[in-house]
Amino acid sequence: MNTQINIGLVGFGTVGEGLYEVLQKSPNARATIKKVCIKNPEKKRNLSRENFTSDVNELIDDTDINLIVELIDDADEAYHIVKKAMQKGKSVVSGNKKMIATHLTELIQLQKENKVALLYDASACGSIPVIRNLEEYYDNDLLKSITGILNGSSNYILSQIFNHEQSYEVALKKAQDLGFAESNPVFDVEGFDSLYKLIILTVHGFGTIVNPDDVLNHGISKISDFDILYAREKGYRIKLVAQVTKINKNQITLYVLPRLVTPDKYIYSVEDEFNGVVIQGEAYDKQFMFGKGAGGHPTASAVLSDITARAHNYKYEYKKQKYFTPPSYSTKHRLKIYLRYKNSDDFNHFEFEDICEKYTSEQNSYVIGTIKLENLLKIKKMLPKLDVFIAYLGDLIDTY
Amino acid sequence: MNTQINIGLVGFGTVGEGLYEVLQKSPNARATIKKVCIKNPEKKRNLSRENFTSDVNELIDDTDINLIVELIDDADEAYHIVKKAMQKGKSVVSGNKKMIATHLTELIQLQKENKVALLYDASACGSIPVIRNLEEYYDNDLLKSITGILNGSSNYILSQIFNHEQSYEVALKKAQDLGFAESNPVFDVEGFDSLYKLIILTVHGFGTIVNPDDVLNHGISKISDFDILYAREKGYRIKLVAQVTKINKNQITLYVLPRLVTPDKYIYSVEDEFNGVVIQGEAYDKQFMFGKGAGGHPTASAVLSDITARAHNYKYEYKKQKYFTPPSYSTKHRLKIYLRYKNSDDFNHFEFEDICEKYTSEQNSYVIGTIKLENLLKIKKMLPKLDVFIAYLGDLIDTY
Repeated sequence: MNTQINIGLVGFGTVGEGLYEVLQKSPNARATIKKVCIKNPEKKRNLSRENFTSDVNELIDDTDINLIVELIDDADEAYHIVKKAMQKGKSVVSGNKKMIATHLTELIQLQKENKVALLYDASACGSIPVIRNLEEYYDNDLLKSITGILNGSSNYILSQIFNHEQSYEVALKKAQDLGFAESNPVFDVEGFDSLYKLIILTVHGFGTIVNPDDVLNHGISKISDFDILYAREKGYRIKLVAQVTKINKNQITLYVLPRLVTPDKYIYSVEDEFNGVVIQGEAYDKQFMFGKGAGGHPTASAVLSDITARAHNYKYEYKKQKYFTPPSYSTKHRLKIYLRYKNSDDFNHFEFEDICEKYTSEQNSYVIGTIKLENLLKIKKMLPKLDVFIAYLGDLIDTY
Repeated sequence: MNTQINIGLVGFGTVGEGLYEVLQKSPNARATIKKVCIKNPEKKRNLSRENFTSDVNELIDDTDINLIVELIDDADEAYHIVKKAMQKGKSVVSGNKKMIATHLTELIQLQKENKVALLYDASACGSIPVIRNLEEYYDNDLLKSITGILNGSSNYILSQIFNHEQSYEVALKKAQDLGFAESNPVFDVEGFDSLYKLIILTVHGFGTIVNPDDVLNHGISKISDFDILYAREKGYRIKLVAQVTKINKNQITLYVLPRLVTPDKYIYSVEDEFNGVVIQGEAYDKQFMFGKGAGGHPTASAVLSDITARAHNYKYEYKKQKYFTPPSYSTKHRLKIYLRYKNSDDFNHFEFEDICEKYTSEQNSYVIGTIKLENLLKIKKMLPKLDVFIAYLGDLIDTY
């Protein structure tokens, strides 16, 4: 039952090196890194030269290595490596949310066909064991929703804005300087990172595989001083929230959107680079899990948990798919949103059902109103080009 | 891999009936209650008569029944039922923290000998999956401490005191009226409930089995208006906290004590009947899990999670015992405490190492000072008889 794990590590960035360090501190862990595959073997590292290779096949073909740990950024490259490893009968641990969310169906199939495991608890919420808990603990029929702050970078930026009165630009710069945000921050601040994580949580929570392209994600890059002032005056904090909700017996809905959060919500107090997830169920009401969602060591500790799980031959069973009929994905329901805009051309793209509040001025205007999610989704591709900021209010959902 | 579960349910109180209701709402759950054993079969119930028996052997000897779910209050009776069931080859789910904490060594042995499982996630923190996460997810060598508000009743009372300015007596009465506290509240307010839970978390977190009698538990029943005023003036809230901490490579220490909690701590915001647990690790820093710790439905949902885990043949492996050398239990370290007393005779029982603050008046006096845990433990049995209130400050631990 207890297997000694010899790791072939792909990638030696923040998390990869973090894993190496965490393993050094855990001498009892039944795992050792045998070889590390990196792009540039000439770069100076904290490990001696013979530990490295630039040929991933050296890892995959090594019969001593019984686990590939993939920790690189490039989702396409990661996909090819992970696929090849599984086809060669090797189990894999990965933290690549984009790769996993995009290829879920195939990756599940590959695990079955090749009788190997792919574990990726590190791919969502860093050190918080959300995936494992959804898979193992929360019974499907009782689960009502998962609501989370899943992206540490954008949350750090919003915390800087709301707690330290900084502008978006200054806060973003600070996040980049601290290494929380990439030089190209689109992945984080436009909600793509949260979206991929949400797709992963959804399959383990509800069994449903949703194509990320079909889900609305709108980020925080368009936030203006006006929006911040509006939120402050009304006692809200703005958070980038990912949510999957069971809207009726057979349907769920998903979206990633900024949200105007009232102080009575658990996620209101999730600050800085932290992540927080609220799991709502029929019987247990609400549970809240909170921890570091980013950073080398926290993420590495999640990777290590997956590695030791492999020492016990653990694999995801995708129980909600296996034992239940997963609900289908629906966009047929209404959201109450705050829409800030500067010119009426932009505003006219939005098909509101009704508007309950309207403010206009030369500089900035806003409306609070009800809109169909499917209508927002229709203009998903156009949204980044408009000078608007959208945030949803409350968790009131009206399905039709 | 997937077994249909036929339950023999022992006890039909708040949690037992809650389980029945939760199962009704989860038609997909692979479990049905076949028969319920109760003390008084004449009592009117929401279920028809033929479902009940007063003879537990009817359940244990029924070859159709493959899981005994034990949800009675009496720890001794529970012990005999659970033991008998396991000896007859039946797996068991139990929520009885006192029974489990008191008989841990034997219960682990019985599971091995009879090749059965005993699951008890409901026994600590109700719906929060703490035991399962400690067992499966948090690697021993990285785990530094577990700190929790584990008892909903006493936390409800303290919340009433601190948020609604009520006296201890009024708050206790209210908790009893609402069914959060028993008519004999000793188990909750004196920290026994928290202590048993802490013993259980400790074996799954660190692998160490500690006898509850050897651990200090001091409760909240002696809290006075003076103590409340003191805490308020200094910006603290008083919480009843259970803590297990790794104090060095080979040793842990445990205690249940009221604590003066500063607002920067996660547990500061755990209010009412909620539970909250902070899990601290080397790599992931701190994680916080929060949810309903008491009540029929939340606890029943934890029981249901254990039941469905049995449908997948899950059992605790006691991994920290199996794969590591568990640290030993030590009391050789110092705590900084607040001690309020009324007369110097009471005060003289306490052997302080040093005192950094002292206040005396005719009515109430207090000191802030450092004391050895082993010296507090020596007077554990005497503490309930003294008119003193003790609370510890911070999480500073000094080992010698």
